[in-house]
Amino acid sequence: MSLLSRESHQPLAEQLAQRFIVRMRDQLLLPGARLPSVRQCAQMHGVSASTVVAAYDGLAAQGWVEARPNRGFFVRERGARAAAAGPAQAQAASDNPPPVNASSLIRGMFHQPHAGPQPGMGVLPPDWLDADFLTAALRKVVASPAMREASLRYGEPQGDTGLREALSARLSALGLHAGAGQLITTVGATHALDIISRTLLRPGDCVMVEEPGWAIEFARLQNLGGRILPVPRLESGPDLAVVERYAQTHAPKMMVCVSVFHNPTGYGLSLPCAHQLVNLAHRHNFHLVEDDTYGHMAPAHAVRLSVLDGLQKTIHVSGFAKVLAPSWRVGYMAVPVDLKESFLDTKLLSTLTTPVLFEKALALCLAQGAIRRHTERLSQLLDAARNRSVKLALDHGCQFVAPPQGLFGWVDVGVDTDALALRMHDAGYLLAPGSLFHADRRPGALMRVNFATTQDDAFWRALARMRDALR
Amino acid sequence: MSLLSRESHQPLAEQLAQRFIVRMRDQLLLPGARLPSVRQCAQMHGVSASTVVAAYDGLAAQGWVEARPNRGFFVRERGARAAAAGPAQAQAASDNPPPVNASSLIRGMFHQPHAGPQPGMGVLPPDWLDADFLTAALRKVVASPAMREASLRYGEPQGDTGLREALSARLSALGLHAGAGQLITTVGATHALDIISRTLLRPGDCVMVEEPGWAIEFARLQNLGGRILPVPRLESGPDLAVVERYAQTHAPKMMVCVSVFHNPTGYGLSLPCAHQLVNLAHRHNFHLVEDDTYGHMAPAHAVRLSVLDGLQKTIHVSGFAKVLAPSWRVGYMAVPVDLKESFLDTKLLSTLTTPVLFEKALALCLAQGAIRRHTERLSQLLDAARNRSVKLALDHGCQFVAPPQGLFGWVDVGVDTDALALRMHDAGYLLAPGSLFHADRRPGALMRVNFATTQDDAFWRALARMRDALR
Repeated sequence: MSLLSRESHQPLAEQLAQRFIVRMRDQLLLPGARLPSVRQCAQMHGVSASTVVAAYDGLAAQGWVEARPNRGFFVRERGARAAAAGPAQAQAASDNPPPVNASSLIRGMFHQPHAGPQPGMGVLPPDWLDADFLTAALRKVVASPAMREASLRYGEPQGDTGLREALSARLSALGLHAGAGQLITTVGATHALDIISRTLLRPGDCVMVEEPGWAIEFARLQNLGGRILPVPRLESGPDLAVVERYAQTHAPKMMVCVSVFHNPTGYGLSLPCAHQLVNLAHRHNFHLVEDDTYGHMAPAHAVRLSVLDGLQKTIHVSGFAKVLAPSWRVGYMAVPVDLKESFLDTKLLSTLTTPVLFEKALALCLAQGAIRRHTERLSQLLDAARNRSVKLALDHGCQFVAPPQGLFGWVDVGVDTDALALRMHDAGYLLAPGSLFHADRRPGALMRVNFATTQDDAFWRALARMRDALR
Repeated sequence: MSLLSRESHQPLAEQLAQRFIVRMRDQLLLPGARLPSVRQCAQMHGVSASTVVAAYDGLAAQGWVEARPNRGFFVRERGARAAAAGPAQAQAASDNPPPVNASSLIRGMFHQPHAGPQPGMGVLPPDWLDADFLTAALRKVVASPAMREASLRYGEPQGDTGLREALSARLSALGLHAGAGQLITTVGATHALDIISRTLLRPGDCVMVEEPGWAIEFARLQNLGGRILPVPRLESGPDLAVVERYAQTHAPKMMVCVSVFHNPTGYGLSLPCAHQLVNLAHRHNFHLVEDDTYGHMAPAHAVRLSVLDGLQKTIHVSGFAKVLAPSWRVGYMAVPVDLKESFLDTKLLSTLTTPVLFEKALALCLAQGAIRRHTERLSQLLDAARNRSVKLALDHGCQFVAPPQGLFGWVDVGVDTDALALRMHDAGYLLAPGSLFHADRRPGALMRVNFATTQDDAFWRALARMRDALR
């Protein structure tokens, strides 16, 4: 992967140009970024300077990059690229909203350099998730005459009643009392977050997000025309002084928070912080959207905003992609009574209803306790993996900025992680650099590692080598 | 259903009030609508005037309606209702975008007065859709080890490759040449239309829609802040003079059209009209979104904008909810090359990926030709049903405004169909009044009937009776 082939029928310059195109397309090289100098690039790839010049000139001719005198080659904006490519495309590009960089970048995560699990990914390895009860539940539901009948109609607008009842029981065990009537199923937690944002926000509205936080959330809120107010995420929760200042000056409509195993820091929420945050939401009249995607792996007594508040100003969102089959795409939200109808309207506009089969299969798994046993097993696997991964990280000179817990480590590598991610990508590793977790994409020395996929010494050695080369 | 019970422990006035609440909640009675006069209502329900007065006073006290001196009782806006109900709810209501009436109304369609298929519904009866090959395909896919493996990862951002290849072949047979790389799968056609609108439109942008047209489309575009420009739908296609005038004066970004078996008129598209519309789109630089939801039941040679245009300014959208299991929620779009990445970004923000299982099962059905044979059978059933339904409609004094074809009849009943729908709802029938198909919800004497669900003489007799009572 990292070497250009001299035996290919394709000239080396073209191979090199192609590799840059892949990176730009996957937004691992973002608009405005400078390509390596000709000398650096030649050295890095073991080719002559004239090969690099030919590759860069080719990229410039195709509109991917532009040469700036005495400064080098820079990645162009998508619109500018299209303009260079021809008038028809340019027109289309200028018609459209600006590209959503973060989502493009995340999309790049689906084009993995290797097939295997990667350090930067946000999910557990597929073999961890595999469980007989999933297939058994699917088979049972598919074989049932009731399912055949249910396939032939649209499902309930709120989602399968059996699943909502099972979820209601599950949430009760967490201390969150929401009847089936207060639950709405969605196409994964992402869909729930999208429905909520679309319903509560209008263009120009202010919305608070935790920083660091999740790139897709930033991208969505920007895409909806929201004005993002970043709130530093501390060990005990969001920085309350900042929340209060924003609330007084900007009248934000909502705040998106992760209470348990925060992504990327792994932080939880302290009880006093949760208490005060809920009070601020009531006093200043904004909604708290609690993304509990990673909550399945946390103890039941972990502090959740929605439990304190009893779903008055809070909306609780979760799904099963992190602990079960991600491709099933089943999520849900527990909502305040007065918002239910509005959320249902938005769900209808976005997907009409949700696929019934998976909802019925999940209801079956929940009723049988299979999911609880499965997540307990995952937590044990994860604890062991975390211990190994943390040791390897420390051995290779990395520092943990937050105490390691949950699925992710938030690591200080000591060099710019955007540059490091680019080099590691060449070596076949996908990293999640810190810029991904800031609304303004600002670079830094931090990165998120998935404890489950960083137990290989070879990865940490490669990381240390590349880091040292960048110093 | 239509009678109040004197044996209930609930007082008659309360029962009556409750029935109005159900109608208002389901938006069969919209904000601004006037309740029947006390005398009319008493007569209609066989109760005393004082019972009606007590019921109306109760509704007013709860904030559902307001009394206007000398004019009667009127349904209040949702926000006003909440305000009357208490300060907490009022605050929430004023925070939110205004209610999406059309979508609420459609949602009411899921709460059917009877379990059986209804004249106003937009789908075929479940027993028509039932087919062994659907369950067989699901079982086969669920049992395959490849599926088990595929469940444990997110699916391809564009959708299952096998399904996209099968769809590409299907579209080729219609004369639409789109490689699998130009296809994106979605959670039903609704999701595709939503992704397209979110990507191409920004708040305040103008968008053309056919009128009459589909209520959910109007609701979505309004919800996104689009300015709706209604274009009369004629027998040959959209009124081109109106399209051109809008294009010159309003710079619309896109137009949503149904080429084949237009909903609700059943109209197709003439070749000259399609040709000129595509030319207008190129000249004035707007996109044509072709909703081909009903296309499966049309002959392959039916005129489609996307075929003429070769997916330059057109986007072709369809799904399987009308001919197969609606609850599977599989849709797709064939898109211009230059828009693909933007649409994928929006798909990612809305649901990340789509459920893989149904996509694989559909690919199997398509590859085996099962869906083609199934839709041929549906077309034959529909032809026979249409003949019967048309005869019954004519026998009962209804007129067809458009030549009957496809799934829907567009019928002139001679009285206000909003009022008629309300009365028929009391008798257990769900109608689709003409107001549902106009962006401004203006009432009229037209309604849409589903040919498959209006073959019962009893329905037409009830309709004629209620109509005559309203004259």
